[in-house]
Amino acid sequence: MPRFLDHAAPDFEAAFTALLSAKREDSPDVDDTVAAIIADVRARGDAAVIELTERFDRVSLTPETMRLGAAEVAEAAGQVPPDVRAALELAAGRIRAFHARQMPADDSWTDPAGATLGWRWTPVDAAGLYVPGGIATYPSSVLMNAIAAKVAGVGRLAMVVPTPDGALNPAVLAAAQIAGVDEIYRIGGAQAVAALAYGTETIAPVDKITGPGNAYVAAAKRRVFGKVGIDMIAGPSEILVIADGQNDPDWIALDMLSQAEHDESAQSILITTDAAFGQKVADAIDTRLQTLERRAIAGASWRDFGAIVTVPDLATAARLSNRIAPEHLELCVADVDALAAQITHAGAIFLGQWTPEAIGDYVGGPNHVLPTARSARFSSGLGVLDFLKRTTLARMTPEALRAVGPAAETLARSESLEAHGLSVRARLDKLNG
Amino acid sequence: MPRFLDHAAPDFEAAFTALLSAKREDSPDVDDTVAAIIADVRARGDAAVIELTERFDRVSLTPETMRLGAAEVAEAAGQVPPDVRAALELAAGRIRAFHARQMPADDSWTDPAGATLGWRWTPVDAAGLYVPGGIATYPSSVLMNAIAAKVAGVGRLAMVVPTPDGALNPAVLAAAQIAGVDEIYRIGGAQAVAALAYGTETIAPVDKITGPGNAYVAAAKRRVFGKVGIDMIAGPSEILVIADGQNDPDWIALDMLSQAEHDESAQSILITTDAAFGQKVADAIDTRLQTLERRAIAGASWRDFGAIVTVPDLATAARLSNRIAPEHLELCVADVDALAAQITHAGAIFLGQWTPEAIGDYVGGPNHVLPTARSARFSSGLGVLDFLKRTTLARMTPEALRAVGPAAETLARSESLEAHGLSVRARLDKLNG
Repeated sequence: MPRFLDHAAPDFEAAFTALLSAKREDSPDVDDTVAAIIADVRARGDAAVIELTERFDRVSLTPETMRLGAAEVAEAAGQVPPDVRAALELAAGRIRAFHARQMPADDSWTDPAGATLGWRWTPVDAAGLYVPGGIATYPSSVLMNAIAAKVAGVGRLAMVVPTPDGALNPAVLAAAQIAGVDEIYRIGGAQAVAALAYGTETIAPVDKITGPGNAYVAAAKRRVFGKVGIDMIAGPSEILVIADGQNDPDWIALDMLSQAEHDESAQSILITTDAAFGQKVADAIDTRLQTLERRAIAGASWRDFGAIVTVPDLATAARLSNRIAPEHLELCVADVDALAAQITHAGAIFLGQWTPEAIGDYVGGPNHVLPTARSARFSSGLGVLDFLKRTTLARMTPEALRAVGPAAETLARSESLEAHGLSVRARLDKLNG
Repeated sequence: MPRFLDHAAPDFEAAFTALLSAKREDSPDVDDTVAAIIADVRARGDAAVIELTERFDRVSLTPETMRLGAAEVAEAAGQVPPDVRAALELAAGRIRAFHARQMPADDSWTDPAGATLGWRWTPVDAAGLYVPGGIATYPSSVLMNAIAAKVAGVGRLAMVVPTPDGALNPAVLAAAQIAGVDEIYRIGGAQAVAALAYGTETIAPVDKITGPGNAYVAAAKRRVFGKVGIDMIAGPSEILVIADGQNDPDWIALDMLSQAEHDESAQSILITTDAAFGQKVADAIDTRLQTLERRAIAGASWRDFGAIVTVPDLATAARLSNRIAPEHLELCVADVDALAAQITHAGAIFLGQWTPEAIGDYVGGPNHVLPTARSARFSSGLGVLDFLKRTTLARMTPEALRAVGPAAETLARSESLEAHGLSVRARLDKLNG
């Protein structure tokens, strides 16, 4: 991967296309394994889940201990340092306030024909939240998923989190408590997704499953899609920063590294109108990489997928940004509003130098579950709509049916759907007879 | 499948559960075939699409004739009888008006901490619409998909429709014209889905693909999901009618048959508080089945999957309805509003005896692409939101960062994401220094 790209260079288009299409993740093909696990859980329920948990997590469960008891949750959550709990609570409050504004309105109106039309939003009855057990266990993600569900009005929120070798994560449990998770099961992997989708003797099935996971979890979510709803299949994290020369290179370097440190497959890109500034950011990244705790991960991500792109003007930056359709987009330029207005595809935009992306990961309020891998071209971050569904409503009066019924009958006949037409005709005949 | 179920019968729960879980569709496993077709189209582009179209549709295309020319569309669409065109236009106008009201609002506000937060909705750049070529080619479905996309503001709408043996469907092309479809390609099957998702020399890739299709199309949509967005994978149609005894049995019979005639796998269920009325509807269905054009299809659907359920009261009817989560729900009772208020899961509700479901298929205004197979528990009918995505916005001031930054730093440290914390800390130090 080239580190520096110059929009003016003759090979720019080829280099930029390569950057866009870089395959950053090798998903192992685990589909057959996952299909077998799902079939096993459907057939044998708890027994299958318990066996698989013993095998993969080295934890012996019974139907009674599969679910964490309230006392156990409280005890583990109690180990969280007070400043972390306070920060989780501050974050939760801000996330809740943001998502409450997302609640869509019902509508109903009578149109000129006399038909009363509209729709109504209702929450799913039950949602399942997958929380990974390993290195990428983030209490902030528990808040983001669970609060969106609870604000939407989901009555029952069941969380699954594997506990390899029995270890509980206090901060994850504290976040679950704060967010109002109703049930917590110490299971993970494809077996947990199958249990949520199909239910077992102990775990009632849910209607929607969200949350990140490894290749097995992703494959399982894909497979149960249709039986239940799922959120997006998230890929490795990305940030694009558009910055002019009037920024502190170290701040921008840290913003880029805060994505790179997530994952060796993460991608951090800077687009700048100032080539010298771009070089300063690259230098600052190198400096920070000497001491950063996660320098091995962040360094690999930066080495393999990072890039600095020089452009002649911000209009070009916006065009390139829209081709990237970044998950996270930071705008650090003099007139952020003018630049933001040119952005058509991005998961989340962070405006101005006082808004590092990390604010959005924790305490900004907007959801940090965002579309990756260019899918911001067609999808949105997680929100209350993911836990709601819309029922449309229509009510005809005899007059309205007289006005529009004949057209329906005509179209039904043209589609050779006789009963459709007759169902309208029988009523029109009554009105006319 | 039992025809009559009585809520008071001792075996009711078992019979109702069997009704709920009836497997109505045997999807052949075509996944390997589809994977090969997609790989072929990705590798060879137009050449693969042309070869596959020759093989499956017996049509010889070139890159130049793949797309229908404007004159060809106009000529075919001109063959549509004037009354059908007028009906399509009436339908289009009503669908457009309904969907225009669905457009979500952008939002922006400054919160107590001084952070400016909000979101913005933008359309996908390009959408692809799959239209089947065989028996189930419905111009009304073209209107429903295309108008939702166009109202959302999709700039480029590309439609694919196979033309087996070269036959064009005039009404489908007229509907495409009326709805504002931008490009029409005479290709179908998994190869058309692959061409839309990945692009070929002739067909530019799209960002979102919607529309119904056979098992190959459904498998292809599942496979390209992630590369592009897709709508739901639709199953066979369903209707649930809740009716008291004060209805014309023939009207209800026709409403039930208007689903049954779609497909042998369709399902029509009546829940009634009046057992004698239920018997009258069954008799009326039998009578209509003697003469209905599509009696073979409708008869098979009714025989295999139809049911009439007697309940003691409407509260019970609502509870059963919510377990079914029907695609279409007709409420034909004295107080439809009281009953509608108890419905939590349904794709679309038709209120009162003057609102046959067929109105919703054509001219009601709401979309007729609706969640099937109990997926109304977690998903909605097609609408403008399917062609829009939301970008969240956050802008901190120095004061806002001072207020919430320390909590972000605390959480970043607790998640061992040092660069996240440093990106906030560097700015706070500047503010404090």
